[in-house]
Amino acid sequence: MSGSESDGLFGGLFGRGAVSTGDEAWLQAMLDTEAALARAVERAGLAVAGTGAAVTEAARAYRFDRGELGRQATLTGNPVPALVRALTGLVSPDAANSVHRGATSQDIIDTAAMLLARQGLDAILTDMSAAADAAAALAGSHARTVMSGRTLLQQAVPVTFGLVAAGWLTGIDDARQELRRVRETRLAVQFGGAAGTLASLGDAGPAVAALLADELGLRLPVLPWHTDRLRIIELAAALAGASAVLGKIARDVTLLAQSEIAEVHEGAGAASRGGSSAMPHKRNPVAAVVILGCTRRAPGLLATLAACAEQEHQRAAGAWHAEWQTLADLLRLTGSAASWAAELLAGLQVDAARMQANLDAAAGLPMAERVAAELGPAIGRLAAHDLVAAASARATAEGTGLGEALLSDPVAAASLGAAGIGRAQIDAALDPAGYLGATAEFVRRALAAHQDLEAAWNQ
Amino acid sequence: MSGSESDGLFGGLFGRGAVSTGDEAWLQAMLDTEAALARAVERAGLAVAGTGAAVTEAARAYRFDRGELGRQATLTGNPVPALVRALTGLVSPDAANSVHRGATSQDIIDTAAMLLARQGLDAILTDMSAAADAAAALAGSHARTVMSGRTLLQQAVPVTFGLVAAGWLTGIDDARQELRRVRETRLAVQFGGAAGTLASLGDAGPAVAALLADELGLRLPVLPWHTDRLRIIELAAALAGASAVLGKIARDVTLLAQSEIAEVHEGAGAASRGGSSAMPHKRNPVAAVVILGCTRRAPGLLATLAACAEQEHQRAAGAWHAEWQTLADLLRLTGSAASWAAELLAGLQVDAARMQANLDAAAGLPMAERVAAELGPAIGRLAAHDLVAAASARATAEGTGLGEALLSDPVAAASLGAAGIGRAQIDAALDPAGYLGATAEFVRRALAAHQDLEAAWNQ
Amino acid sequence: MSGSESDGLFGGLFGRGAVSTGDEAWLQAMLDTEAALARAVERAGLAVAGTGAAVTEAARAYRFDRGELGRQATLTGNPVPALVRALTGLVSPDAANSVHRGATSQDIIDTAAMLLARQGLDAILTDMSAAADAAAALAGSHARTVMSGRTLLQQAVPVTFGLVAAGWLTGIDDARQELRRVRETRLAVQFGGAAGTLASLGDAGPAVAALLADELGLRLPVLPWHTDRLRIIELAAALAGASAVLGKIARDVTLLAQSEIAEVHEGAGAASRGGSSAMPHKRNPVAAVVILGCTRRAPGLLATLAACAEQEHQRAAGAWHAEWQTLADLLRLTGSAASWAAELLAGLQVDAARMQANLDAAAGLPMAERVAAELGPAIGRLAAHDLVAAASARATAEGTGLGEALLSDPVAAASLGAAGIGRAQIDAALDPAGYLGATAEFVRRALAAHQDLEAAWNQ
Amino acid sequence: MSGSESDGLFGGLFGRGAVSTGDEAWLQAMLDTEAALARAVERAGLAVAGTGAAVTEAARAYRFDRGELGRQATLTGNPVPALVRALTGLVSPDAANSVHRGATSQDIIDTAAMLLARQGLDAILTDMSAAADAAAALAGSHARTVMSGRTLLQQAVPVTFGLVAAGWLTGIDDARQELRRVRETRLAVQFGGAAGTLASLGDAGPAVAALLADELGLRLPVLPWHTDRLRIIELAAALAGASAVLGKIARDVTLLAQSEIAEVHEGAGAASRGGSSAMPHKRNPVAAVVILGCTRRAPGLLATLAACAEQEHQRAAGAWHAEWQTLADLLRLTGSAASWAAELLAGLQVDAARMQANLDAAAGLPMAERVAAELGPAIGRLAAHDLVAAASARATAEGTGLGEALLSDPVAAASLGAAGIGRAQIDAALDPAGYLGATAEFVRRALAAHQDLEAAWNQ
Repeated sequence: MSGSESDGLFGGLFGRGAVSTGDEAWLQAMLDTEAALARAVERAGLAVAGTGAAVTEAARAYRFDRGELGRQATLTGNPVPALVRALTGLVSPDAANSVHRGATSQDIIDTAAMLLARQGLDAILTDMSAAADAAAALAGSHARTVMSGRTLLQQAVPVTFGLVAAGWLTGIDDARQELRRVRETRLAVQFGGAAGTLASLGDAGPAVAALLADELGLRLPVLPWHTDRLRIIELAAALAGASAVLGKIARDVTLLAQSEIAEVHEGAGAASRGGSSAMPHKRNPVAAVVILGCTRRAPGLLATLAACAEQEHQRAAGAWHAEWQTLADLLRLTGSAASWAAELLAGLQVDAARMQANLDAAAGLPMAERVAAELGPAIGRLAAHDLVAAASARATAEGTGLGEALLSDPVAAASLGAAGIGRAQIDAALDPAGYLGATAEFVRRALAAHQDLEAAWNQ
Repeated sequence: MSGSESDGLFGGLFGRGAVSTGDEAWLQAMLDTEAALARAVERAGLAVAGTGAAVTEAARAYRFDRGELGRQATLTGNPVPALVRALTGLVSPDAANSVHRGATSQDIIDTAAMLLARQGLDAILTDMSAAADAAAALAGSHARTVMSGRTLLQQAVPVTFGLVAAGWLTGIDDARQELRRVRETRLAVQFGGAAGTLASLGDAGPAVAALLADELGLRLPVLPWHTDRLRIIELAAALAGASAVLGKIARDVTLLAQSEIAEVHEGAGAASRGGSSAMPHKRNPVAAVVILGCTRRAPGLLATLAACAEQEHQRAAGAWHAEWQTLADLLRLTGSAASWAAELLAGLQVDAARMQANLDAAAGLPMAERVAAELGPAIGRLAAHDLVAAASARATAEGTGLGEALLSDPVAAASLGAAGIGRAQIDAALDPAGYLGATAEFVRRALAAHQDLEAAWNQ
Repeated sequence: MSGSESDGLFGGLFGRGAVSTGDEAWLQAMLDTEAALARAVERAGLAVAGTGAAVTEAARAYRFDRGELGRQATLTGNPVPALVRALTGLVSPDAANSVHRGATSQDIIDTAAMLLARQGLDAILTDMSAAADAAAALAGSHARTVMSGRTLLQQAVPVTFGLVAAGWLTGIDDARQELRRVRETRLAVQFGGAAGTLASLGDAGPAVAALLADELGLRLPVLPWHTDRLRIIELAAALAGASAVLGKIARDVTLLAQSEIAEVHEGAGAASRGGSSAMPHKRNPVAAVVILGCTRRAPGLLATLAACAEQEHQRAAGAWHAEWQTLADLLRLTGSAASWAAELLAGLQVDAARMQANLDAAAGLPMAERVAAELGPAIGRLAAHDLVAAASARATAEGTGLGEALLSDPVAAASLGAAGIGRAQIDAALDPAGYLGATAEFVRRALAAHQDLEAAWNQ
Repeated sequence: MSGSESDGLFGGLFGRGAVSTGDEAWLQAMLDTEAALARAVERAGLAVAGTGAAVTEAARAYRFDRGELGRQATLTGNPVPALVRALTGLVSPDAANSVHRGATSQDIIDTAAMLLARQGLDAILTDMSAAADAAAALAGSHARTVMSGRTLLQQAVPVTFGLVAAGWLTGIDDARQELRRVRETRLAVQFGGAAGTLASLGDAGPAVAALLADELGLRLPVLPWHTDRLRIIELAAALAGASAVLGKIARDVTLLAQSEIAEVHEGAGAASRGGSSAMPHKRNPVAAVVILGCTRRAPGLLATLAACAEQEHQRAAGAWHAEWQTLADLLRLTGSAASWAAELLAGLQVDAARMQANLDAAAGLPMAERVAAELGPAIGRLAAHDLVAAASARATAEGTGLGEALLSDPVAAASLGAAGIGRAQIDAALDPAGYLGATAEFVRRALAAHQDLEAAWNQ
């Protein structure tokens, strides 16, 4: 837990990216809260001039012994009392009087968690933005790259890879909007004192709270939210939602990268990644696998945070404590998944020829319904259905194509011939590229929505 | 699973309220979707006039054999194909041609789930509104009812019951806003056909989709969302958030209703509830207990839905199917909790005298910090602290009050006397009602925010 | 919730098999508990002869109005008090005196839950036994059916389908043992009275408890376990473990059944299942998909039960109530998955030719490591590695086979020729069937372990 | 993640005790596995003498650069390939040939996880044993300490604190047995090579596997369990079960330690803990709170591991990776809870006088049912019930005791007098110590079961 969460044996996998949730980040966030409080107290006229600056100057993580704070934490159940003592010892008696003024430990930890969340959300949003742009580029450049649609893992009617990427894009953009909504509207300062009344500040409590929010750039809530944890749930849900979207993309990539399908590969940006000197054919989708290694943990962490929201009276006995590392883990893992996803999508190699080959291998069978629909007007709906069904069964049994099966059967051929339908019409009906419906329109819409989002956010 | 979820042995407990998620509700929602699709197809000019009306007329749940649909569902993995066959059989051949036009089973089930969600959210919002009003009434009428604050289940500095109720109110109102946000912006029609391309509709897909959304009053999404399940996560998170808020209230009520605390009781609205003829002293907080029996299940259901959001390609093999009953359970349980909470809060009996008695029994000890702060200016900060700490220890050991301990000690009395501090000042410092800080202001703010919300929503 | 959980729209999917957890099953289990208690009380000499028989005679579910019991349940938080009243009304005054003697509501519900669990476990064990036998048959008959191993969804060194099935078998058998361990050792009668002291029975409590356990064939626990829920967790974990094992099998089947892999298909036992008249090529793996639709819900339900085990004092305020339907759902879903799995495995069609074709399509590349190892002794380890790596890269780039790439390169051919290695040796090294290591031994062991288990259980 | 998990800001809270799951522990466990494999390979005659010793000598965590291993891990998705390279570089060419012989990365990580689990389980079992002994001591010494039973957080019929502690004891002992069962029977070596066939070892695979199991003291499984994760679920469930038992104890302690109940306090062993210099009356139950802060996280982690058990083919793409830190967290948190619980129970202060006072304050009302039962034979069952019910209502309304209410009513007094029942009999019926039923017997049984367990394990 100590050290930086991006270091160590597993940090590159599960702590990649710019989200900071290690001890140093926690400590500095708590100190930033204490410093901002000292400045707020001074601005409220409750401390002599210079107090805020003095505490701010002292409130630097490197000046504190984390191990000692951790040991002291076992006496009170959290590290804040020891931190306050240590911080107080670093400033003049005048300034010392204002340290932690009006606050309780929970105020510091909850507000610090909000600061960690903001830093984490910003880092995640940056990587998600890059991922979205990469998905948009894929959607745009592959708008006409036809491939097999797949439902229940079975080949279905055709789609384009552009549409697949557009689906990823829409998911990412929707997740970004939810992350941003939470960041902008739900990250609020926590400041209530011992039981949420700010009693030790007399009448000055609300003013100090407002100044504290101003100092930190966090929202001022209607009430202290010490045992109203809805904003934690919303934050966690936004993170789990982002994880889910990234997990869906990674799942698709692992499936499309299967040796037998091989329609996409992880890219050259990870030249030496996933390879094996002895097995050059093997290109493990490392990024996608690691993304799933991160995202699979989100639902359990979300459930813990949702369950912990049932908090007693004015401070919970345990449920609050269970939140700290859980939220940090969820931020870290979502951030790591986002960082991996940005690289994955930017470098994804799409094998359009293989997509076409996989379609060809299906020998027209996914198009059976379409062929029947096309033949209907000419030879009757029922007759068309029966003809195509029989031909499909034959094609499946004999391993030939549907077109071949239709045309090689004397009865069918006669029927088709009588209606003036020849190989050209059959081939046209069997062409996947001709059966894409709204695919192009959907890709356009997804790209337009993405551009609108970017435009709105960049104003 | 069949029958109405509010009936049966456990329906009154876990299926109370107006949320409908039983078989009949599912069936009618699927039929409503098919009927709306037929109307949309007609409006798009793809079917003869009267088709929509004919299908709508036929699409009534009572006309279908649910058991048979269920048996047929085992052949395809969902009940829609059998439903489509049965519905088709009820209408003229012309209308039959338009039944299920362009759609796939997932379109029907997902859109039906959105309709169930809308009905459920409306029912929940109604009960949550009543609960909020009841909490607001409690906050207003008990703004000056002083009681002990409690942190880590230990008595802390005083609060008012009005502030406690204001906290409940703010939680409910925040949950309502999130439920409403999801209802207004995230419930979208699902319509993509076999693989999300609407290919069988040719160019007409987007137009039919838009008309379908219009018919049902649901949002039209940028893309079909068959394997982009973020809106399911957001819906589930909003429900779990509401459950968490209600669970916190119920937990507070069970704690405040403990025999040894007895500051609140469940109300006369449930006259015969919770009682025992042989043990008239026993007033089990049945509503609060049942609320917790509902809300404790939300985090696990939320986790399932979040985990199921990793869906493959164009239709998931299992993860989608796992959503149906899970989402229905989450709607039902949140609705039941909301219904119970509305009654609980409307009838809650608050024993202000007992609150005062519990404060009195603490003999001033929770006020020690305040007393020291008050004495500081007169006798010096350090001396005041030592004096009060010693007196507190004595009071705890001897079971006397803090004021008595201060004044009965010769040294302390002399020190206080020299500073001109007598019993009156001590008593004033010990008065919980004098140490409430921003409590009244916070209650005012919560009530004002509630009124603003109501005003905004009632425009 | 009312009605039978195997009926209705979704019962065939998620409530298949013989596990009974609907209202009728709950009601009869509660009545069975009350009846057994009456017999135990009589055997303990606390009631006149005939009491037990009279209560047992009356305790038949069809004689009770479930809806009315459900409505009455809202007054007390559970249906037992109303049930006791109704049951009392059905017997003579003498017998009435013994109804519910010494018991509290929780005794009845918890013991009923144990009875439901036993019935459910028996049903699940029966289906799991059939599934194990089917997996064993597959393992035995396909011990030499070579197929590609796959890691991270990429082709790896070869395995046999027999080994895959042996892995499924071992998983099922391990899960069966855990289910049976819980069934035999952890299903215990709950009987503690109002607060776990059996006070109203005076000294006779333990004797009645022992007789009750004897009547029901349940274990007698050391203590009443009203707020010690470890056995619920163990039961839930055994069920979730079984679900996980079945989910892994279903996941493998969906992957192996992919159109592009097509090595297995769901069987003729479900002739009309998964098919599509218009798309005869499409054979949706319905059973596997529905299994996943069941098993994906187990982790969340398990988490709920584990979280609910933190129960207060002598009866929990809500956590206990949240268990009832959650446990029932977990039993039902595991049972449904087991029932589907038994059919799936019994009918699974294995396409050995396709397995060989998929291996052939890999063109020897998964064997590269083996080829290098074989060449090492002849031409030097390092030289062999370089030779094979270069050939593999060439084979991948040119789409030829590894053997071809090795022999068509003049330098490589010269090197191999000098070492006396020709096409025969290369072909031998490239033969997947020659690189199976312990595969056959592992299959033998799994089958032997299965036979040992069957023998031990059938004694 | 790096560093020791017991250090740092939060390590004292959530990483207390002797469970080791930090980077160093992981690294050494992986090295121990590699070293044991080298020795097994030598013992199997596949390597020259001295190979095992040489690798073992080199396999010391301090010789490896964890940061570098972590960076290299991003190329392959796990740190093993880089570790193998580094280890190979530390030994002679002969020994190097045997490093990682026959193994794949998953073999090393899974077996290392088993070693971590064994160390963790041993540490947890040690602390749980101490906790059990402390609970047994409490049960024994307080077998006659009468206190109020409490159901749904309401006072119910009396129990003894000895029975409460006996319930804790039984829970701990049951959890210990499950932890030990998993430790003894389910921790198995993982050794299957690239796809579970041990192909690169030719015929020697099973022999090397058996020797590896022997070297490490782990079980030899029937098959490699790479994608059969049932033992992970069983391990996780045993840990979550232990957490649940400890969480129940901590919950009871927080409730019994409430200011208004104050029947127990955390002990002198934590003299300076939980106190507040300014509020000496406040004794926060720090240990209990931190235990809950650990145990509340177990269900979500368990759910993640259960969900991850659905693993594809011969190695999972992500689900396996998600297990590593999740399992480590669950071990660490359970260990921390156990360590805190051992201290908590050893030092728990029980206030028997306060227990009596809380009973007295209930004024006999929880005994109403008993009083009626006692009066029945004398004045008729129905009359007795009515008399007591009326008196109870009066006592509740007037705040007097039940005995007083009975005797002060002229009608009741006359009825009682006529039956020869006076104050002495009423007082006897009202004595909680006389209405304990099987309490003493239950305590005896729990203690006997504990002694049996200790005796069996110490043989």
